[in-house]
Amino acid sequence: MGAALLSEFATEIVVPVCAFIGIAFSLVQWVLVSRVKLTSERHTSSSNKNGYGDSLIEEEEGLNDHNVVTKCAEIQNAISEGATSFLFTEYQYVGIFMIAFAILIFLFLGSVEGFSSKSQPCTYDKEKMCKPALATALFSTISFLLGAITSVLSGFLGMKIATYANARTTLEARKGVGKAFIVAFRSGAVMGFLLAANGLLVLYIAINLFKLYYGDDWEGLFEAITGYGLGGSSMALFGRVGGGIYTKAADVGADLVGKVERNIPEDDPRNPAVIADNVGDNVGDIAGMGSDLFGSYAESSCAALVVASISSFGVNHDFTAMLYPLLISSVGILVCLITTLFATDFFEIKAVKEIEPALKKQLIISTVIMTVGIAIVTWIGVPSSFTIYNFGDQKVVKNWQLFLCVGVGLWAGLIIGFVTEYYTSNAYSPVQDVADSCRTGAATNVIFGLALGYKSVIIPIFAIAVSIFVSFSFAAMYGIAVAALGMLSTIATGLAIDAYGPISDNAGGIAEMAGMSHRIRERTDALDAAGNTTAAIGKGFAIGSAALVSLALFGAFVSRAAISTVDVLTPKVFIGLIVGAMLPYWFSAMTMKSVGSAALKMVEEVRRQFNTIPGLMEGHAKPDYATCVKISTDASIKEMIPPGALVMLTPLIVGTFFGVETLAGVLAGALVSGVQIAISASNTGGAWDNAKKYIEAGASEHARTLGPKGSDPHKAAVIGDTVGDPLKDTSGPSLNILIKLMAVESLVFAPFFATHGGLLFKMF
Amino acid sequence: MGAALLSEFATEIVVPVCAFIGIAFSLVQWVLVSRVKLTSERHTSSSNKNGYGDSLIEEEEGLNDHNVVTKCAEIQNAISEGATSFLFTEYQYVGIFMIAFAILIFLFLGSVEGFSSKSQPCTYDKEKMCKPALATALFSTISFLLGAITSVLSGFLGMKIATYANARTTLEARKGVGKAFIVAFRSGAVMGFLLAANGLLVLYIAINLFKLYYGDDWEGLFEAITGYGLGGSSMALFGRVGGGIYTKAADVGADLVGKVERNIPEDDPRNPAVIADNVGDNVGDIAGMGSDLFGSYAESSCAALVVASISSFGVNHDFTAMLYPLLISSVGILVCLITTLFATDFFEIKAVKEIEPALKKQLIISTVIMTVGIAIVTWIGVPSSFTIYNFGDQKVVKNWQLFLCVGVGLWAGLIIGFVTEYYTSNAYSPVQDVADSCRTGAATNVIFGLALGYKSVIIPIFAIAVSIFVSFSFAAMYGIAVAALGMLSTIATGLAIDAYGPISDNAGGIAEMAGMSHRIRERTDALDAAGNTTAAIGKGFAIGSAALVSLALFGAFVSRAAISTVDVLTPKVFIGLIVGAMLPYWFSAMTMKSVGSAALKMVEEVRRQFNTIPGLMEGHAKPDYATCVKISTDASIKEMIPPGALVMLTPLIVGTFFGVETLAGVLAGALVSGVQIAISASNTGGAWDNAKKYIEAGASEHARTLGPKGSDPHKAAVIGDTVGDPLKDTSGPSLNILIKLMAVESLVFAPFFATHGGLLFKMF
Repeated sequence: MGAALLSEFATEIVVPVCAFIGIAFSLVQWVLVSRVKLTSERHTSSSNKNGYGDSLIEEEEGLNDHNVVTKCAEIQNAISEGATSFLFTEYQYVGIFMIAFAILIFLFLGSVEGFSSKSQPCTYDKEKMCKPALATALFSTISFLLGAITSVLSGFLGMKIATYANARTTLEARKGVGKAFIVAFRSGAVMGFLLAANGLLVLYIAINLFKLYYGDDWEGLFEAITGYGLGGSSMALFGRVGGGIYTKAADVGADLVGKVERNIPEDDPRNPAVIADNVGDNVGDIAGMGSDLFGSYAESSCAALVVASISSFGVNHDFTAMLYPLLISSVGILVCLITTLFATDFFEIKAVKEIEPALKKQLIISTVIMTVGIAIVTWIGVPSSFTIYNFGDQKVVKNWQLFLCVGVGLWAGLIIGFVTEYYTSNAYSPVQDVADSCRTGAATNVIFGLALGYKSVIIPIFAIAVSIFVSFSFAAMYGIAVAALGMLSTIATGLAIDAYGPISDNAGGIAEMAGMSHRIRERTDALDAAGNTTAAIGKGFAIGSAALVSLALFGAFVSRAAISTVDVLTPKVFIGLIVGAMLPYWFSAMTMKSVGSAALKMVEEVRRQFNTIPGLMEGHAKPDYATCVKISTDASIKEMIPPGALVMLTPLIVGTFFGVETLAGVLAGALVSGVQIAISASNTGGAWDNAKKYIEAGASEHARTLGPKGSDPHKAAVIGDTVGDPLKDTSGPSLNILIKLMAVESLVFAPFFATHGGLLFKMF
Repeated sequence: MGAALLSEFATEIVVPVCAFIGIAFSLVQWVLVSRVKLTSERHTSSSNKNGYGDSLIEEEEGLNDHNVVTKCAEIQNAISEGATSFLFTEYQYVGIFMIAFAILIFLFLGSVEGFSSKSQPCTYDKEKMCKPALATALFSTISFLLGAITSVLSGFLGMKIATYANARTTLEARKGVGKAFIVAFRSGAVMGFLLAANGLLVLYIAINLFKLYYGDDWEGLFEAITGYGLGGSSMALFGRVGGGIYTKAADVGADLVGKVERNIPEDDPRNPAVIADNVGDNVGDIAGMGSDLFGSYAESSCAALVVASISSFGVNHDFTAMLYPLLISSVGILVCLITTLFATDFFEIKAVKEIEPALKKQLIISTVIMTVGIAIVTWIGVPSSFTIYNFGDQKVVKNWQLFLCVGVGLWAGLIIGFVTEYYTSNAYSPVQDVADSCRTGAATNVIFGLALGYKSVIIPIFAIAVSIFVSFSFAAMYGIAVAALGMLSTIATGLAIDAYGPISDNAGGIAEMAGMSHRIRERTDALDAAGNTTAAIGKGFAIGSAALVSLALFGAFVSRAAISTVDVLTPKVFIGLIVGAMLPYWFSAMTMKSVGSAALKMVEEVRRQFNTIPGLMEGHAKPDYATCVKISTDASIKEMIPPGALVMLTPLIVGTFFGVETLAGVLAGALVSGVQIAISASNTGGAWDNAKKYIEAGASEHARTLGPKGSDPHKAAVIGDTVGDPLKDTSGPSLNILIKLMAVESLVFAPFFATHGGLLFKMF
């Protein structure tokens, strides 16, 4: 079988070095962003092609208007404070949950061998002795906490950066759309690289520290490491759901009174919910998404590692091959670094219509370079032939087959990205048709939008199916896990273009609130329209990778639970399958209703302020922003608990009472059903949002026949957009986490379920 | 093992006698309906408690108004002609398809043994000789055609009866809500009993005729009989999809211009699309639904028979036990007959609020009596102990276990019915909450409605899961099939209360068009509101039974295709599963888009007429109804082909190129995903419709704060209702057929797939 070309020592160097390069690069980007001053003394520093402060053509009057800058700084401050205070409140609740769940993990896993601290025969090789179950319980708990903390950190840092960048983007928009784009994109890159590098680094350190105790017992070591994925994903759940409810309650509430009833523009400073709305973009779309993608990354790494530990890599103690998943991510950071330079330094955006192509180019460039990267890593990182654990057997795999597994995931991600773009960008006919259907009112708009979302599922599902078939056939569950890693290998770039959207959205809000001119708002709107598309693309990646990740975790769970087949034609499995397929609906019902209820509360408060604060409508008096922020905070904290409980408790209840077969059915059902709803919900929402923007922008002859703002078709489009808000930003993206989290939780608790599970069937 | 208590001779008598009783009863109901004269000479005939023509208190002026009666007759005539002409056009196209597909069946199945006419070893007992594959091909083709013709007949007769009854219901509404209810309900019963009895009789005759050739080769006999289910279901597909597009294109088109733009009431005779709208109710909700439920009935019978033929019933040639599925249906007819008398003769409806409870009572009474009926049939119809084929083994089953299988299906149906009622009737809080959300506009209405639909899936899925678990555990696939039959055993009552809805809807339309007074319209509206709920209940039954039926068919397919497990953890099965779960989305996208496009065409035509026909709006000139009828007809015929092709071709393509494992995955995926969308779509639509009616009726303090007609909340409710139309009447109910039809088609073609399938994998 041979060993990998790369020595163990080299691996131990390469991984942390790449992580540090990522962190250093993000700091550089941050320094560049920070050169845009939120005070009025500017025009001082050095020059480079996209530099700041060099003598610019002043495209806009008022570039040195002190008042505007001060006002921007004020608004930014309010948004940042609101977001920080929400996240702190959220983390308090989540912290309590985290500790309780950590205890639960320890007790459940410890009970497997009755809390005995004696060594035991290994699960997959009964002739060897492994560390006690108590150790696995303890280390799983530790890695769970590590994952949770890293996830919280990822989300929090992302939010901090975004709230730092939003006003700076607004100010740069005075100089032109290209400048604003660079600031927003660089800030996104700060988040992307920090997150990718941190996730890698913490995982790397954890593995090396755990190894001090576990020594040669890699089976136990990597079983304990899976807690890292569970920790990451469970925090992501609360981040996505809580943040999603927050942002959409504020958004829907603000729009319903502001735009529909009072006829004032979006982000008008007179609207009391406007700060809450802008806070929401940061806690939902930034912090929530950061945690989500970190979770996917952590889980796919863990799934690959746990399968590898019982394959020839683990059995032969080939450390380099074992860390292949981390090597992929390491190279990914370098590839994304080069890719980012294409957007920020090699080319320059000069016009609005260049924004979307520039972002698309990012996807293509990173995918192409990464393909080479994967080839190199696979060549030097794994032996030319090795075996992979495949539900009881060992399957022989060649290194070129493994390369194809990672590659197919990577390219499937690109396809999903492009299909998503086609269905959600207003440059193509699907969104234009939806906009056109607004002529006959909101009802046809909703019908066409829903149909669009359903239709947009087709190609991504085929792309996922092909990836699964190829990687499954070549390298069983390990193949699926590395395919997911392939899709996520360019995560830094993905996050950069993803985070860019909400930052631009915020920038537009700040421009409006600071009373900046119409032209600036138009520029930020153009950035934002591209941002809607990239947000949908980002969600497409998140969902596609979630499907692969949860299948890999599912396979690892089945292996660990010692069931060799999951036969649909047994009653236990089939009822699991159909109930599992129902869970995404239950979950969506909860989250959508939550947004609806919270939005109604917001509407009442906003109405109350308009009715009781004299001079508010005329702009003489300031609204009470804080109360709206508080309503969103309280509602989202309260409402995130039931859907969170549904996801976290289902595997525990099913596994304990119905056993591993039914749980396997539930996981498969939730996976195949959830991925469809998630894709269709996020694309429908994105399409409605951009159909509205298409009418508002009036860039084509066709678009102008539908507009202008305030026309009947535009009103119909606003209704569609509002319906789409909870679909695309709350229920849709949370479903990724539902399917991943249930799978990783089942995997972590598999030893317990295999020993004590299925109580109900044991009783009868 | 013993034999059934009932002798073979007695079985041969009981089944046709029950069928004839059903037909006779439906004729009696028809005669009673026909006593309501559509000419003005009345008040002549005999009297009974709910009789017609006895000296009635004239609650309404104008009871003898010749003009009104003549006008009603005219309108009825127009609706009936429109419906007949559409169905004839549809049947022409469907006829061509039917012949082409019949040839396909013959060629595919004939090719299994190379068109050899020599006897061959049986599939399940290689030591015995069975009839040649060519015979199976021929008889499958014949039974396919029989099923198709019976399905067409069921739909057509239902439509004829409904268009006969609608104006009569309107006229009786002058005398009170109770009288109108009886006419509508009796007409529904005519359809229900005719359909149940015909389906049973044709199947019975086919079995006996085929037996003349097959003799003791029951394996071949009942394999050929499965064509009956395929024929029934494939016609149902076109009926549901074509009819569904027709009705909703007309409905949405009429509402968008009439109610929204021109501000004229629903069913106003000035609206050019009004006749098309009323025709639509008859071709979609009546003919389509009739074919659909007939299909479910035929398929569950076929699934049970084909499994029984390779179990001890078939092996021991116990004819009575073999015909157990038909005995259940026979008793079902008698039970429904008694149940119907409770609605028409034992009690009388006096007030609007008694309508829904009366219909609910029908469900409860039929379920309770049927439980006894099942017990008796199971006691006398099957041996006390027997074996059932279970994927290779023979499983011992006791007769009381079989009773539980049928019973659990029956009662699960009742639970699904009640849950559906709870979520779609405006007497309960879910619909009232949706109505309340209209205060903040159409967007919150849509969000709350979607959430309601998602939530309404939970309990039905648990009910289905429990039925599956119980019946699967006791009697494998045979258990599932008879559970489905249990749910469908009260089909005559189910159809009666289901058909009652569209008839009342039409009656209201006729009242409006004939210019009858406000009070009459209020009465028909009350009937119609209850009808919306019962329609949703009917759809709930249809979906629940479809889930069970298709699982049973799926099991039969797997047995016939000679695969012993369908393991999710193989790439072939898993990609099938995830692609299968996507199909309902693809299908829904097609049907919803079709309704949207057809509605847009209708809108243009209606607008054109309002703009170009002078005096139309003032009521001086008559609109051109015929053009609108033609638009709906053409659009629905054209648009039903792509979704029809998707459903019919998928099993053929997957089976031929990817083989039986992948096809099994597709079937399981489509089943578990489709059932969720179907339930949520039909409940969401029903809830929106009744939320609108709740506001319009203004029956409570709360409802009055939202109304009256034309208020902002009411306008928002109309938008929700319009969005719901294609969901509840086109895409939702068609999904039942998708999951059933793909399963039965796979079963019929199983011999071909098992022999020649999987070309793609064979090539590599």
